[in-house]
Amino acid sequence: MTMLPIKKYLIYFFFLLPFFGYAEDGSQLWLRYKPVDAQTQKQRHIRLQDKHETALLAKQELDSYWRGPSIEMHLDKKAKRLKEGYQIKGDTSAVYLTAAEPIGLLYGAYHLLRLQETKADMRHLYIEEIPDYDIRILNHWDNLDRTVERGYAGYSLWRWEELPHKLSPRYEEYARANASIGINATVLNNVNASPQILTGDYIQKVKALADIFRKYGIRVYLSANFSSPKVLDGLADSDPLRKEVQDWWKVKVKEIYQHIPDFGGFLVKANSEGQPGPQDYGRTHADGANMLADALKPYGGLVMWRAFVYNPTEEDRAKQAYQEFVPLDGEFRDNVIIQIKNGPVDFQPREPFTPLFGAMKHTAQMIEFQITQEYLGFSNHLAYLAPLFKETLDADTYSEGKGSTVARVTDGSMFRGEKTAVSAVANIGEDTNWTGHHFAQANWYAFGRLAWNHQLSSEDIANEWIRQTFTNAVDFVTPVRQMMMDSREAVVDYMMPLGLHHIFAFDHHYGPEPWGDRKGGRPDWMPWYYHNADTIGLGFDRTATGSNAVSQYYPPLDSIYGGINSCPESLLLWFHHVPWTHTMKNGRTLWDELCIHYDRGVQQVRGFQKTWDKLQAHVDQQRFLEVQSKLKIQSKDAVWWKDACLLYFQTFSKMPIPYDLERPVHELEELKKIKLDMTHHN
Amino acid sequence: MTMLPIKKYLIYFFFLLPFFGYAEDGSQLWLRYKPVDAQTQKQRHIRLQDKHETALLAKQELDSYWRGPSIEMHLDKKAKRLKEGYQIKGDTSAVYLTAAEPIGLLYGAYHLLRLQETKADMRHLYIEEIPDYDIRILNHWDNLDRTVERGYAGYSLWRWEELPHKLSPRYEEYARANASIGINATVLNNVNASPQILTGDYIQKVKALADIFRKYGIRVYLSANFSSPKVLDGLADSDPLRKEVQDWWKVKVKEIYQHIPDFGGFLVKANSEGQPGPQDYGRTHADGANMLADALKPYGGLVMWRAFVYNPTEEDRAKQAYQEFVPLDGEFRDNVIIQIKNGPVDFQPREPFTPLFGAMKHTAQMIEFQITQEYLGFSNHLAYLAPLFKETLDADTYSEGKGSTVARVTDGSMFRGEKTAVSAVANIGEDTNWTGHHFAQANWYAFGRLAWNHQLSSEDIANEWIRQTFTNAVDFVTPVRQMMMDSREAVVDYMMPLGLHHIFAFDHHYGPEPWGDRKGGRPDWMPWYYHNADTIGLGFDRTATGSNAVSQYYPPLDSIYGGINSCPESLLLWFHHVPWTHTMKNGRTLWDELCIHYDRGVQQVRGFQKTWDKLQAHVDQQRFLEVQSKLKIQSKDAVWWKDACLLYFQTFSKMPIPYDLERPVHELEELKKIKLDMTHHN
Repeated sequence: MTMLPIKKYLIYFFFLLPFFGYAEDGSQLWLRYKPVDAQTQKQRHIRLQDKHETALLAKQELDSYWRGPSIEMHLDKKAKRLKEGYQIKGDTSAVYLTAAEPIGLLYGAYHLLRLQETKADMRHLYIEEIPDYDIRILNHWDNLDRTVERGYAGYSLWRWEELPHKLSPRYEEYARANASIGINATVLNNVNASPQILTGDYIQKVKALADIFRKYGIRVYLSANFSSPKVLDGLADSDPLRKEVQDWWKVKVKEIYQHIPDFGGFLVKANSEGQPGPQDYGRTHADGANMLADALKPYGGLVMWRAFVYNPTEEDRAKQAYQEFVPLDGEFRDNVIIQIKNGPVDFQPREPFTPLFGAMKHTAQMIEFQITQEYLGFSNHLAYLAPLFKETLDADTYSEGKGSTVARVTDGSMFRGEKTAVSAVANIGEDTNWTGHHFAQANWYAFGRLAWNHQLSSEDIANEWIRQTFTNAVDFVTPVRQMMMDSREAVVDYMMPLGLHHIFAFDHHYGPEPWGDRKGGRPDWMPWYYHNADTIGLGFDRTATGSNAVSQYYPPLDSIYGGINSCPESLLLWFHHVPWTHTMKNGRTLWDELCIHYDRGVQQVRGFQKTWDKLQAHVDQQRFLEVQSKLKIQSKDAVWWKDACLLYFQTFSKMPIPYDLERPVHELEELKKIKLDMTHHN
Repeated sequence: MTMLPIKKYLIYFFFLLPFFGYAEDGSQLWLRYKPVDAQTQKQRHIRLQDKHETALLAKQELDSYWRGPSIEMHLDKKAKRLKEGYQIKGDTSAVYLTAAEPIGLLYGAYHLLRLQETKADMRHLYIEEIPDYDIRILNHWDNLDRTVERGYAGYSLWRWEELPHKLSPRYEEYARANASIGINATVLNNVNASPQILTGDYIQKVKALADIFRKYGIRVYLSANFSSPKVLDGLADSDPLRKEVQDWWKVKVKEIYQHIPDFGGFLVKANSEGQPGPQDYGRTHADGANMLADALKPYGGLVMWRAFVYNPTEEDRAKQAYQEFVPLDGEFRDNVIIQIKNGPVDFQPREPFTPLFGAMKHTAQMIEFQITQEYLGFSNHLAYLAPLFKETLDADTYSEGKGSTVARVTDGSMFRGEKTAVSAVANIGEDTNWTGHHFAQANWYAFGRLAWNHQLSSEDIANEWIRQTFTNAVDFVTPVRQMMMDSREAVVDYMMPLGLHHIFAFDHHYGPEPWGDRKGGRPDWMPWYYHNADTIGLGFDRTATGSNAVSQYYPPLDSIYGGINSCPESLLLWFHHVPWTHTMKNGRTLWDELCIHYDRGVQQVRGFQKTWDKLQAHVDQQRFLEVQSKLKIQSKDAVWWKDACLLYFQTFSKMPIPYDLERPVHELEELKKIKLDMTHHN
């Protein structure tokens, strides 16, 4: 060994370096502040007059971690225009942080720490931040038995069996992480709700969590089962127009507020996928929502009523929410917000925005995103979702002419409800790293940041997340940011490009199953319902010759989407049944283009592997290996997806996969036999 | 559809075309002659005076399939220099085929048909072909229960339970196929021989096969179990120097010749891997072989005595055959040939030639090749073996100075035994396509052609095999020939490049298992015995500082192989324990070069897939799909091999896989858990 030239020694050492590093487990998320030493603390002061616990918390965070000049914190209750936001002014000698509410000071403190951790230029600060949405809320699909529907990061964080007596330290860590990115509300339980959550025992458990979260500005909401009166207290039914039922809810709400004075309200999934609802009694969604809203009104509580409804009828599933809700426009109470999934089907890798956005001009609307990757490879695939969120937020509904983006339709700029809100289904579980995949933390982060400011760019969010979570080294930040930026489109490419959707394996939605079919199953749960592959072509005709879902969009979108040549190619097969030999904009046939997209997805994931492996020296060994391992799975899965979809669709197209593309390595018949031992919850 | 431009229609049609083609199953091998019609038969004549059944067969083949001018066949018993060969003279009006023996006429007939089928220029023919080896023999490792050791094409062709009464049509097809490529002998049963084969009942069965094969010029040999006298007839032992034992064999041999007058002789695996042999009684291999030779001598029979011997001692396995046999040089009878595997270990993807070749100057020697792909992916991997066979044949032993190639050492040019011979372990089973993989037929074909003429090039053999087996279309022949020519090196690359060897999974030898170890197992059956990976480097030190196996080679090979910089890099790790950071000829480190080889193997197999898929229109659907399917398996296996070996060796090298290479998709620990449900026979 002593004869080896120095250069080789160095390479050798370089590779070994990370092995000696400090093993990390991701439990710290993006909050990796290092405590300042006593001397630094002496040199600068964090001043605060107010004694509100949230304001004190802000001071405490800065005391512990702030390395900059002294800070003067000021609560200015008259500066109402700031809402929960804040103003920061400062230079190298002093910083002034002002807010109208204590929580504003805490958000401001995290802002300063973010600037510090990302090595931002802080020589001249003049910042004013006002949140775009009043309510920035996570939806946990956590069941009371601690399974999590569509959860891929272990069991539920809420240890119901231990509550309210034993309090996991992770409850406060959870609250702090959310506060650090501006999230101020959470729905603790699954929308497929157990009535149990509203029993006295559970209200005590919920109160215990609310008491922890309060200091971090987080209000608790609950998913309510519409049949609760009947199930819990033996009422004859749960008809929202019966006084006995209405009274039951009033009593129940009162009970909740006695224990949780800042309780946020109810999230309701009604008459959807088997859940009970007002239609069980011949009533409308408005009847149901309003009854709850009336009960909550005296306490300032809200109803978030989900528009995710569809029935196994002849009607295109993508049209049904619009058809059901638009006629009810104007009938909802002021404290009801209709919660609408970003796309009209169900959190697919890519969908157009749901046409309900902007279509109910007298009804408050909010978006429901899905952070948990039900349809994007669970916690196995790296898919940075800010670009997906932005795609919906920035989509122009044309509801009030050009510029009526989904963001503006929902943030109060165009229509004014009592409160504005934006929600997302969480990807959080009790895994040490919270989200299963280290990079899935970025999606939680990105949702919070966009809920605060939907104008932020995906790149900027990725940039600040990487710098806080890993390192500020440009050699790391630049390639990782690029990988993140490319990642969602890679998933679209290897799973369902060009507007394909919902060709997932039954129930668990992990792998491909475009051939999927179940005897007696609901057609709208079958892949063929969505892809419509036949000898002519591929895709769902939603033009006037088909389901005419395009007509639900405002002009000119209806005709843009409706024209096979004007429709964006990324949504082509969503709106059109397209001949295999259709000429795409680049001159290729649909079939060739489809093949090229699938192949590109595979190659991109292999590229991510290269990117990541190259960065080993920048990352602690544990996170390096864990991400490396996930990328291997993703790489294999991408090939699986590509082969499954191309080999299956080829049985219709009868056309060759372009010969310059890597060939399939699977047999279609073998792939059809794969049955994963997975369910729809962990 | 009617609006589609014509061009697209054509592509569409082109792709569908083969679906309408005639499905083929490969059962015809390279013998796809089409019968001539009655008119053609009338226009030209095949004339023959002789009435020998083999000569008549030659006439019959030409009568049925020859489309050229009239042929005059002539048996010239004085032209002994032709041996089993022939002379062809002719032009567009007439062809003259002369041979010294009837089989020469048959071989000549197949030569003419081969020229016809490959569309050779036959306007002026002047051909003289004399076989390089007297005996061109297949070794079947077929057990009497019809399993085949290292067989990957179904059960044995020999239906022992039906013989001698029922005769499968495949016996004659087998003989014809062999005759068409000049193979003139076959060992019917496994070298790990059951004594049962020498019972009267089995001699009748063997006779039935010999009677069919005789017409095609094929002599039958049997593998003999050295303990037969003791096992079959209760002799006290099988000591070759005891008269009772010698007499037993004389009686047995006489019995065989009574039924099979042209019986070829015995193949013996003795004192090897648990088989009985003369050493059980303190006798030498010469004692054992000579006893059998004496019994066979009166009938012109031969003993092929295998040199594949090694014991679990401290001595390098690769040295043991040489050590055991060289001292016996000159002690063997004239009708004994020592059968030596091409490489000193065991049919690895690449080995140097066995140093025994040329080292016994007073003993007849023959090569044993392995056609069946025990160590080259079974019948799943496309690996054209002519380049492997040629590598040994063309290797210079320097035994009598430069030019003493293994071919010349064994073909009688340098040392004269009673007979010269070359053998290979067959890859034939009762699968419809004979060899499991359609392209494995080419290895049977190539062995026959090289046994006839070891000067043929691998390219030329591939060329004629492709043209006969598939098509003469240049667009097909050229890329497929290239694929075949690249294929063995691809296997070496993704399995064990740079001289690595025997890092296969235990017993079945299919997948990778460089980590393989069994408590109490023989070290020389363990991968670590061969690769010697440690923190310093990789490879088996067979130089003077190690086992000194290099000393068994004649100068200058001993010093060429013995020098780390003079040793061919393709054999580097065979002969040297090389530091991971050793600089290769191209300036890369050993580690990087190793990674690049593994990666290249993978990429090459993917290239084969592309090559093959592109040629769909040239191939019948059945063979196209079957080969396509095998290539998929090979492609996946190549990645498996690459990941397993690189991830395992990386635990020693601690160096990164070069970052421009595709990254592993497997986890080492997962790969270690793979246990295939395979044994060493089918």
